[in-house]
This record gives sequence, C-alpha cells and structure tokens, in this order.
Amino acid sequence: MPAIKQHALQLTGLRRQVLGLLLANRPLVDSILGRPVRDASAAPQVISDQTARLVAIQRHLHAADLADLLESLPHDERLAFWRLVGNDKRGKTLVEASESVWESLIAEMSNGDILKAIRPLDVDEQAYLARYLPRDLVGRILTSLEPHRRAQVRAMMNFDRDSVGHHMDFELAAIRPDVSLATVQRYLRWRKTLPENTDKLFVVDRHNLLVGELALSTLLLNPLDKQVMDVMDPRPTTFRAEDRAEDAAGAFERYDLITAPVVDNKGKLMGRLSIEHVVDLFFEENDSNLRNLGGLSPSEDIFAPVRKTVRTRWAWLAVNLCTAFIASRVIGLFEGTISQLVSLAALMPIVAGIGGNTGNQTITMIVRALALRQLEKGNAVFLLLRELGVAVINGLVWGGIMGVVTWLLYRDAGLGGVMMLAMLLNLVLASLMGVLIPLTMIKVGHDPAVGSSVMITAVTDTGGFFIFLGLATLFLMH
Amino acid sequence: MPAIKQHALQLTGLRRQVLGLLLANRPLVDSILGRPVRDASAAPQVISDQTARLVAIQRHLHAADLADLLESLPHDERLAFWRLVGNDKRGKTLVEASESVWESLIAEMSNGDILKAIRPLDVDEQAYLARYLPRDLVGRILTSLEPHRRAQVRAMMNFDRDSVGHHMDFELAAIRPDVSLATVQRYLRWRKTLPENTDKLFVVDRHNLLVGELALSTLLLNPLDKQVMDVMDPRPTTFRAEDRAEDAAGAFERYDLITAPVVDNKGKLMGRLSIEHVVDLFFEENDSNLRNLGGLSPSEDIFAPVRKTVRTRWAWLAVNLCTAFIASRVIGLFEGTISQLVSLAALMPIVAGIGGNTGNQTITMIVRALALRQLEKGNAVFLLLRELGVAVINGLVWGGIMGVVTWLLYRDAGLGGVMMLAMLLNLVLASLMGVLIPLTMIKVGHDPAVGSSVMITAVTDTGGFFIFLGLATLFLMH
Repeated sequence: MPAIKQHALQLTGLRRQVLGLLLANRPLVDSILGRPVRDASAAPQVISDQTARLVAIQRHLHAADLADLLESLPHDERLAFWRLVGNDKRGKTLVEASESVWESLIAEMSNGDILKAIRPLDVDEQAYLARYLPRDLVGRILTSLEPHRRAQVRAMMNFDRDSVGHHMDFELAAIRPDVSLATVQRYLRWRKTLPENTDKLFVVDRHNLLVGELALSTLLLNPLDKQVMDVMDPRPTTFRAEDRAEDAAGAFERYDLITAPVVDNKGKLMGRLSIEHVVDLFFEENDSNLRNLGGLSPSEDIFAPVRKTVRTRWAWLAVNLCTAFIASRVIGLFEGTISQLVSLAALMPIVAGIGGNTGNQTITMIVRALALRQLEKGNAVFLLLRELGVAVINGLVWGGIMGVVTWLLYRDAGLGGVMMLAMLLNLVLASLMGVLIPLTMIKVGHDPAVGSSVMITAVTDTGGFFIFLGLATLFLMH
Repeated sequence: MPAIKQHALQLTGLRRQVLGLLLANRPLVDSILGRPVRDASAAPQVISDQTARLVAIQRHLHAADLADLLESLPHDERLAFWRLVGNDKRGKTLVEASESVWESLIAEMSNGDILKAIRPLDVDEQAYLARYLPRDLVGRILTSLEPHRRAQVRAMMNFDRDSVGHHMDFELAAIRPDVSLATVQRYLRWRKTLPENTDKLFVVDRHNLLVGELALSTLLLNPLDKQVMDVMDPRPTTFRAEDRAEDAAGAFERYDLITAPVVDNKGKLMGRLSIEHVVDLFFEENDSNLRNLGGLSPSEDIFAPVRKTVRTRWAWLAVNLCTAFIASRVIGLFEGTISQLVSLAALMPIVAGIGGNTGNQTITMIVRALALRQLEKGNAVFLLLRELGVAVINGLVWGGIMGVVTWLLYRDAGLGGVMMLAMLLNLVLASLMGVLIPLTMIKVGHDPAVGSSVMITAVTDTGGFFIFLGLATLFLMH
C-alpha cells in the first residue's frame, strides 16, 4: 500500500475496511481479546488472516486516523483494535484521541506499556496526557526526564486548562538579532531539524527577551548579508501564558497565524502556540456548545456501553423531570377550570410549545454570539428590545391566527381571545428569559450554554400553562 | 498607538471604545449618516471629535477586527461605522465579514465604490465575493482583469460551494525537481515575495504535473548543493478540486497541514488549499450545526432589525405551530377521557417532555458524530440498540419513580401504572426516532441537523399524548 497518503480522501476506504472487519464479527473480537471463541462456525484460519490484515492496515494509518477509528468503535471492538496498535504509535494516538475514550484505552494498558508509549512524545504532549494518568505513573514519567524538561512539564501541568500556558509547546527555534541571514542559514543546517509547523524563528537577546520574529519566508526572500534585526518583524503578535486559550484562538483566526510566541510578564520567551492546538481548541469550544445546548455531558462518548451512557445522561433527565413535574403541578392548580372546559387541555400544549421554540432560538443565537465575541455590555439592551419586538409581532400574527382557528374549531370567541392573549404573553416571556437567562449566567461566571435550554423550556412550559389557564379561569369561568 | 498589535488581546479595548462611542449615541450616528441631528443637546464639536476618533481607531484595526465589529453593531450604527471605513480596507473587510451582513454593507456602496474596494483583492477573494454581487457589476469586474485571471475567477465561480475548488487559491510558488537548493534560494530572492502562509513550494515537471513538494524548512535544513528531487517529499497529500471541502478540512486537521496542493484528474497542479480557509470552514460547519439544531436560519444576523428577524424566523415558527396543532388534535380525540379523569391533563406534559428531552439528546449526539465522521453504516445498528437499551433502563427507573409519585399524589394505583408504562414507551419511541430521523435524512441527501429537533419534538409530543391518553382510555375508563 505505498500510495496511501497520495490522495488524502482515499483513507475512508481503509477506515471502512477496519469497521467492516471488526463490527458484527464476534469471533474475531473475542479471539483478539483472548476470550473463548463461542461461534463454532469461525474458522481459525479466517480469524488469523483477518487479524493480520488489521495489523497491516493499522501500520499504515496516521495516529489521528487511528484515534478517529477507535472513537468510532463500540467498547469491545475498540479494545480489540487497541490491542493491535503498536506501542510506538499508542502515545501519539492517545494525544490525538478525545478524552472521552482515554479511560477505556488507558485502563487496557499496564504501567510499563504506558511509560513505553509516552516516553517518545514531546514535552507538551506528555504534560497534556499526564494529568489524566494514575498519580504514581506521573511520578515515574517525571523522574525519567532530564531536569529542565521535568521543570517544563511541571510548569505546564500547573497552568489552568483554559489558559494559553496549558496549550503551548516548548520546542522552538530562537536566534539572535545581530547576526546575518547567512549565519542563520548555517545555524539551521547545523541544527538539522526544526519543530513541526515552524513558520518563523523567534529573535531573542541574550537575556532571552523577545525582540522580534523572523519568518522563514523573510529569511529566504532577503539578501544573505542582511542582519536579522533589519528584516525581522519587530512587533510580533504575542501571548501570555495566563491568557485565555479561547481568546488566543480567536486571534489566530483573525490574524491568520501559524505560530506565535508566548512570553512572560517581563517579555521573556517561554514557548510557542501553534495552529494545530488552536484548531483543536476551535473544535472543543464549538463542540461543547453543541453538546451543552443538546443536553449531552462533556464525557458523552458516542460508543460508550449502555451502563455508562445511562450514567452520563441521568443528571439532565432528572432536572428535566423535576421541571416537568413543576409544570404539571401548575396545571394541577387549574383542574377545576379544565374539568369545566376540557378543550383547554388540548390547547395548552400549543401555548407552551411555541414559547419553548422561540426561547430556544433566542438562546442559541446568544450562545453563538458569545462564542463569536459579538456580544458586549453595550449592545445587550438593543438585543433585548429587538427580541421583545419580534415576540410582539409574532405573538400578534400567530396568536391571532391560532385565536381565529380556536374560535372556529370550538365556536367560542372568548376561548379564541384567551388563546391569542396567552400566546402573545408567553412569547414575550420566552424572548425576555431567552436573553436574560444566558446573560445572568455569564454575570455569575457560569457557562451560558450549560442548562440554558432546559431552563428556558421549564420557564416557557410552566409560564405558558399558568398564563393560559389563568386567563381562562379569569375570563371564561363564571 | 504604535503598540496596538504588541499583545494580541489588548484589541478588545479598541473594540470596546468603538462600541462605547457608537451605541446609544444617536446624534453621532445621525450625523455620520447625514441625517438631521434631532438631539439639541449634542454639541457639534463633540460629534466631530468623536467621528475623528472613530476614523483613527478604524485605521489601526485589522480587517478581521473591523468585520467583527460591524457584525456586533445594530443596523444604523453598523452603516455609520461602515461609512468611516476607508475604501482601501473595505474589500478585505467584506471578505472577512460573514455573509449575513454583506447585504446591508454592499447596499450602502455605489458600484464605483464596490469596484474600487474589490480590485486590490486576490483572485480567490474576488471570486468568493463575486457570486453575491449584482450581475452587471460582476461583468465589469471580470472585464477589468487580465485574461488569464479572468479565466481563473470564472473557473472558481463554477465550482460548487462545498467543493475544494471553491476554496482554493491560485497564488502559489512552484519549482522544478532538477535544480539545486541554491538555485531555488536564488529564485526566491529574485521573486521577492511569496503568497501568504507559504510553508512549502510545489515541485512540478515541465507539463505542470505535480511530482512532489519542498517544505521551506527542508530547503533551509539541507546542504545547498542537493537537488530538489533528492530532498522533496515525493508523495504529498493532495486534493482534487471536486473533493468535498468538509472532507479536506478533516484531512487538514488530521495531518496538521498548513497548505496542500490541488490537482486535476491528470495530476496537474491547479492551485492550493490553505489553513486559513480551512479554519473558516470549521467555523461554518460547526456554526451551521448549532444554528440548525437551535432552529436559526443560516441568514440570522444577531443585530438584524426586527422586521428582518421576523422574516428569518417565521418558517420554523410556522412548522412548530403546525406540529403543536396536530398534537393538540390528538389530545382533542381524548377529551371524553380527560373530562372523566382531569388529572390526566396535568400528567400528560411530563410524558411528552421527557420524550422530547431524550430524543433531542440522541439527535445532538448523532449530528455531532456525523460531523466528526464517526458514524458509518456498520456501527449505526450498535447505536440504535444502545439507545434503546438506555431508553428501557431510564424508562423503568424514572417511569417507576413517576409512577409511584403519581400513585401517592392521586391515590390511584392504576393511574400510576399507566404513567410508568407511558413514560417507558415514549422513551423507547424517542430513542428509536432520535436515531432513525437523522439517519433517514442522510439517506435521502438532507442535512440531518436541519429540522431534526423540530421533528423529534413533534413525534415525542404527539406520541406521548397518544400513548398516555390511549393507555388511560384502555385501562382506566369503564
């Protein structure tokens, strides 16, 4: 298979082969996992051929593809395939895999295996994995490192997960400002390697203070006798280790950066941030918004077994059940009214449903605007007024339509009027809370995506039932 | 303000200043837009100082920041600020801005202005904007270009929006395989410029057939007397113009690419794809999933005026109202039952709500898995069975709890039993449809994120009411 990487998208073919071999193939999975093969129809020769084929494919796949594949496999198939991944590739694969599958993969490995897998990694990758490993193992990894590397890993592990420091790496190429480009080129040829994704060299003085950066293209486009300081960019875009990683990611997107230096308070060069980590950050942020609004926990793993899935989902289900119960008690208050006019029971879900729909639209819009950093204190008032305006118009139009439909259906003009008024009021309530709930959450330092959707549904359900049945009791009961 | 770019995150300060000056400052906005300033308290001197300040800030901001700011402003403030943006920056700003604001910005400009703004852009940027411009203007832009550039723009405009061809650019540096690295370096110094984000040179033979790629780092790390063909990567990751852009973005993330060559069917070099477009693609894809699941249309602009927002949202509202009406008619079928046992009206929203919650969790999970390409034909069956398993367990546990609560609350064991059974059945229905709806949508070539959420809610509401009231009629009515 020499031409595998030739065309990047042919890879899906290899992925399909792995899935095809492993899925619904109990005998193969059992045999790899060393369990007794129960299916008598499985010929040992076929199983060993298939295993050999999997090992061969595995060898040709990039660590990122292996990680993807492992995430796409149900539990047993995942473990079986993981057994076949060589120790030399396991470290990189763990780094590329999402955290939701680490637990199941690492649980499979002995401490010795983990050490073997992790040793060849870069410092930043080791630090990234380290905080999810058993404590005694982290100690052993740290002692196996040279002292200055150990200090680096320790430093990274102490940075907050959401900070630039947590995502930076230490492998970088630095040069002095007062040498010629020819000297820089000689230095690079002597060095023989550059860190991955190097698009620029960092220029530092002898106190390691960052004074500029020299793009590889600048180095190549200028006459060799020029001094670094004459052609370098003396005002590079820099970050600090304690900056929020999300903000840094935004800056990468805005300024089309590939790498950028990270400096300490005094302006000394500490490390660099590179686009590959930033792309991962984008994924994570967008993903967490999607998960949170959809009521999935961050540890939801698409192929987790039933038991684990029940556990990750039960919290939102319980919250939802509580709010539904409260809404139900509100209806309970009006049982007298409903027993006199049973059509109310059929109409009330319309009022509640339309409010939930509008409220969720508003919340999605705000969470999105926050992620894109389009929302500031100054424009929140505009937004609130705009949403209220939209709600009033929709309430009058759709409430009016439903009011007329109700009137015709039940031949009761009063009921139609109550329907229209209730829809209008519930839409206003929905848009008001749709803006206020996420903004209040930010104020108290809470992620506005988490739980907003459940809260708005609770408010529009309970509120919708209360408004509709309350108005009915007020105007239609005698 | 010379140190503006020094620390990337200080920018938010400038953004705040612009928002602070423009928001809730009617006199300034009116004056910039050339409208009569109604507020008598506004001193002309203050207004002209503030305008000068905005112009100064605008000059220091990167086009991407200008685009962000314009998106964060309500309609009138946006137009006022746009008036102050220099023609030299307007083209780049349009490219960086999201499509939802183009209409309002371009509507402000004369055809002459648009031509002036667009002429300095790269071919790929012109093509990107061209398809949203008035037709006669596109013709004028095309005629103003050199013939070979005109052909390139035309070719790009013909590629599908979701294809690699639509996102590639034509500015690239190509070299021959049979020259020394010293020659390549001389050639680059003679060229004097390289396209943005160049991390590698493409190696082509005299028929423009791609034979390899030479990373700038490889060029710098190897002895100058080596031949290109000895050090180049002879098997680069390539894309075709008709590949799906989404798939290419996935490959960029997997293989940590910065740029990659795009070739035609014969392997001839056509252009290149670069990480900056890919990052934008990630944003778009994640954003569209979030919008779609939240019921926002792709043209939803957070600061659109009321009238436009009503228009972009009415479709989902109408669909939602229809499904709610159907659910209401299902309840209507059972009015006889409800009038005999009015507590059913209070309990039925619990059954419907819990189904909607579970169904939406399942759908979010599947849309997410599809975006991450973790879902294949082979593992869909596993997923369906897993979700059914989770539904049965949750149905038994939470249905059991609610059954007992109902029993105690209404002192009616039969009602408790119906409650439990209805919750169990509706959870099973929700998880079944939560898997089947998005998968069916893919099968018929429809984006599974669009409308899934509305459909699942319709099914779980209608289904929940029918199951619960149907069981009650069957078991509790005499």
